[in-house]
Amino acid sequence: MCVTRPTGFRAAACKAGIKPSGRPDLAMIVNDGSRRSAAAVFTRNVVVGAPVEIGRRWRERYLGARGVDRPEALRAILINAGCSNAATGQAGIEDAMATMRAAAGALGCAVEEIMPSSTGIIGHRLPVEKMTSAMPGLAALLARGHDADDAVAAAIMTTDLVPKASHREVELRGHQVHLGAVAKGSGMIAPRLDSAGDVGGFGAHGTMLAFITTDAAIDADCLQIALERACRESFDRVSVDAHPSCSDTVICMSSGMVANGKGASAEPIHRSDPEFFGFQSALTSLCQELATKVVKDGEGATRTFRVEVRGAASHDVAERLARAVIDSPLVKCAIHGKDPNWGRIVTAAGNAGVRFDPMSTSLTLSDGHSAGVEVYRSGLPTGVPKTDARLISAMNADPVCALLTVGEGPGHAHMLGCDLSAEYVKINAEYTT
Amino acid sequence: MCVTRPTGFRAAACKAGIKPSGRPDLAMIVNDGSRRSAAAVFTRNVVVGAPVEIGRRWRERYLGARGVDRPEALRAILINAGCSNAATGQAGIEDAMATMRAAAGALGCAVEEIMPSSTGIIGHRLPVEKMTSAMPGLAALLARGHDADDAVAAAIMTTDLVPKASHREVELRGHQVHLGAVAKGSGMIAPRLDSAGDVGGFGAHGTMLAFITTDAAIDADCLQIALERACRESFDRVSVDAHPSCSDTVICMSSGMVANGKGASAEPIHRSDPEFFGFQSALTSLCQELATKVVKDGEGATRTFRVEVRGAASHDVAERLARAVIDSPLVKCAIHGKDPNWGRIVTAAGNAGVRFDPMSTSLTLSDGHSAGVEVYRSGLPTGVPKTDARLISAMNADPVCALLTVGEGPGHAHMLGCDLSAEYVKINAEYTT
Repeated sequence: MCVTRPTGFRAAACKAGIKPSGRPDLAMIVNDGSRRSAAAVFTRNVVVGAPVEIGRRWRERYLGARGVDRPEALRAILINAGCSNAATGQAGIEDAMATMRAAAGALGCAVEEIMPSSTGIIGHRLPVEKMTSAMPGLAALLARGHDADDAVAAAIMTTDLVPKASHREVELRGHQVHLGAVAKGSGMIAPRLDSAGDVGGFGAHGTMLAFITTDAAIDADCLQIALERACRESFDRVSVDAHPSCSDTVICMSSGMVANGKGASAEPIHRSDPEFFGFQSALTSLCQELATKVVKDGEGATRTFRVEVRGAASHDVAERLARAVIDSPLVKCAIHGKDPNWGRIVTAAGNAGVRFDPMSTSLTLSDGHSAGVEVYRSGLPTGVPKTDARLISAMNADPVCALLTVGEGPGHAHMLGCDLSAEYVKINAEYTT
Repeated sequence: MCVTRPTGFRAAACKAGIKPSGRPDLAMIVNDGSRRSAAAVFTRNVVVGAPVEIGRRWRERYLGARGVDRPEALRAILINAGCSNAATGQAGIEDAMATMRAAAGALGCAVEEIMPSSTGIIGHRLPVEKMTSAMPGLAALLARGHDADDAVAAAIMTTDLVPKASHREVELRGHQVHLGAVAKGSGMIAPRLDSAGDVGGFGAHGTMLAFITTDAAIDADCLQIALERACRESFDRVSVDAHPSCSDTVICMSSGMVANGKGASAEPIHRSDPEFFGFQSALTSLCQELATKVVKDGEGATRTFRVEVRGAASHDVAERLARAVIDSPLVKCAIHGKDPNWGRIVTAAGNAGVRFDPMSTSLTLSDGHSAGVEVYRSGLPTGVPKTDARLISAMNADPVCALLTVGEGPGHAHMLGCDLSAEYVKINAEYTT
């Protein structure tokens, strides 16, 4: 069980006829909790789909208000695959609203309590009629348990080969709290998610959706902070193809059903509570597992590749270096060919748009289980032969691990990517609009 | 004829045993001119090969001095393929110097008048002994004419499928002036070349070498300016795989043999002379032809793709947008599959790290010969069907032409790239260190 593992959630999926393949394509995750809260982050791409626009407006209203003025938290997320409802303008907003009204009608809640989320082809109108017709049947299917969870995980897939789900448990003030999640993502993956404080943004990419549920009683602002932190350490750290999407979304809903809070009334966790860190850790770990699953299922990927940069002038510099390496097509091809072509890694870093001294730079390749082998130090190859057993072990590992040290600065960062295969080209040259 | 077409040049190539394939791999272009000048630009990659370090030092000495203090211009360029002499530290500098001494000995000039240039594998020492042994034989082969030119064009190739050469003629003050050139480049291509004013740099990529000869009498500072401008409009406008190299180099040598200058003594062209513009145009046009040839021969490329961005806030913003589109693997796969997947183009631009308003953005695809067809306008698809004859013609063209208008600003830029094929993956997964 994943999304319905925490108390207070039901889920369902069905075939609404959106995917040309005829596979399940419409899903719903419902929060029946008595003390609900919710949090969300979205793509920083300049071009966004209608659901992201609606989601941002919701977040602004929701987090902008406090106490009794705060509107009801999300009651449900309505997700479809097969059509991203992006580049559809005002009509796309209205289409999404129509499906939200149908969902609200089926659940007996306000339309503002429904969050839409869409993935699939860009520039096509949502098949509203198909979706609204399917809604009563979808609502009737809502249930807890493995079947419901599996159905949701399958329905949100696009080019994904495997469904992605995960869960965590954590004890807060003696109460067992659950977190569950589903995600999709295979191509157009390199999420950089925004925060509630952003005034809009840029730099983002990736069609990656993740939906997280928890029965922890947690304050909405606190949940938003926890989600943003978790995403920085998980989804923001992976890239399949460095290409932007307009639909990246991570939503977390809490039912508040577990009385994990403090005081006689078991108030929800606040940021200053020690329990916050326990919850944060579990959420981050959950998101990291999902992000890794997304990369492993990257389009055409046969293996993953982890780059860690240390000794940079700042974390930002380190991240730029790590991204330049992980997204280089030549490095990705070398990983595919199991070739310890460290020259490509070093020169990819040399192109990151930041300064570092090659004479103070070293590169170690490893299989992640042993110390590995240094192949480049102080601007020079160390002369390790390709036949070195440690090097062969490193290049056959999954992930292949590269540690790039560029000096003695305090900045460090890591990224997880995957190899580039002929299969990636096949998938993306044959997928047509 | 190309590099020896201008008066005052000889060239030769031979097999020195550097390439494992046993093909020709050592070449020399010699300037016998009486009023020589030279100019050079190099990669902005943080990591550079020994020849680039030597070249930058030469340029600093050469352009830093004036009049009688200026050292002799380059007498010859010594080029090898099969080993880039990069990541080789001080030993690499000394190796290059040893080959320069051998070349200077064979030509009877000073070692400072020789410019080395290397391409090939990174992190391997130059086979100095093989190169110095070959030098007397190479010098003995020096000649003018097609055979010599063709031999040089072939010897500098690595994964190139075809040799790349070109030439121009231009009349300056009633005198016919010639320009000739050879280039290599197929993978690790996306040059961003520096200028003599740079204090070092970053942001560059591409193993692209180009060597240009001219018999125009032109002042060295003037030639440097002309070369930098020409590169901005040519090599800096192309990308095969967005990956940095450490060896990008463009060198232009003038023999000064044509008395195209002004006054009784036919002084070399200065920047303020109207002739400068004639020379500049010919040089830019020559470099553009070479840059296009490099992209057409990009590793695995089956077709090229031109993106023009207009209406941006600045030229810099426009360039970032154009680069984000041209380098997106998803866009490159769509071009390969002849799929008018405009959603990928628009979302790739959305990730360029610059702001623009999708509602003021439009995208037109064309075959470059006709007006083409607008597929996206004001944030919405125009609804042109995939079966539209203009769209089919555009997607089958070479280059496929995309015009992305992002507003009404003054900034514009264009980039030429190529598709991503399974062959690219094959070449780069199988090429081993």
